Amino acid sequence: MSQAFALDARLAGDTDAIASLPLSDLLLARDARFPWLILVPRRADMAEIIDLAPDDRGALLDEIVVVSEALRTVTGCDKLNVAALGNMVRQLHVHVIARFTTDPAWPGPIWGRGEAVAYEPGVRDTLAGRIRDLLPD
Amino acid sequence: MSQAFALDARLAGDTDAIASLPLSDLLLARDARFPWLILVPRRADMAEIIDLAPDDRGALLDEIVVVSEALRTVTGCDKLNVAALGNMVRQLHVHVIARFTTDPAWPGPIWGRGEAVAYEPGVRDTLAGRIRDLLPD
Repeated sequence: MSQAFALDARLAGDTDAIASLPLSDLLLARDARFPWLILVPRRADMAEIIDLAPDDRGALLDEIVVVSEALRTVTGCDKLNVAALGNMVRQLHVHVIARFTTDPAWPGPIWGRGEAVAYEPGVRDTLAGRIRDLLPD
Repeated sequence: MSQAFALDARLAGDTDAIASLPLSDLLLARDARFPWLILVPRRADMAEIIDLAPDDRGALLDEIVVVSEALRTVTGCDKLNVAALGNMVRQLHVHVIARFTTDPAWPGPIWGRGEAVAYEPGVRDTLAGRIRDLLPD
């Protein structure tokens, strides 16, 4: 038996959970500067994509695809950034970020850039709802 | 007929090609500070993973996996960073980087951090050869 999965405390503190996909929890970062989603496969003690079972790797790719499609459709972004880094939080998680040539970090990466800006709750809930509406049931 | 694929000039200038995989060219970045590989699917006019055909997405995942395994085995790194950003170079490319808690950018991302340090040619060729030896024929 593997150990039970529990979402990393720092990820939990910096995000709101907006959906549960077959493999992963889908989180929205608490930073209104960037439409920024994070997929966290519900697998305990996992840090690297290559350490997932092959079926889980395929499921993660499928979830990256549906989440990326939804985020691009909802935001009309100029570019998607998709990344599994894990230098700060070791628990495996995949960032899917909508980038704009007008955003405050462009063309650099967004990590470690200044302070997060809180969402207005209505703005956050509208964004989360529009993304959820585009995910498969 | 799709347009012919040609490697982006900036990618070509910043890397050495070390292998040709079924879908992608495998490049080694000219920066001795980080063991840093880049996969470039040979598909013209492609910027996003989600715009690849489904079979190509699966092939890209397979290549990310074999390249990640080889890089981790050769370097004994503390963490892999896997990312498709494309803010600077729009042509679809996936970074696979071996990170160490002792490297000069840790725990931040490596992009846009200072100036690249040239490899000694022997060091670069040894690294490239060891990676190639671990890739499937």
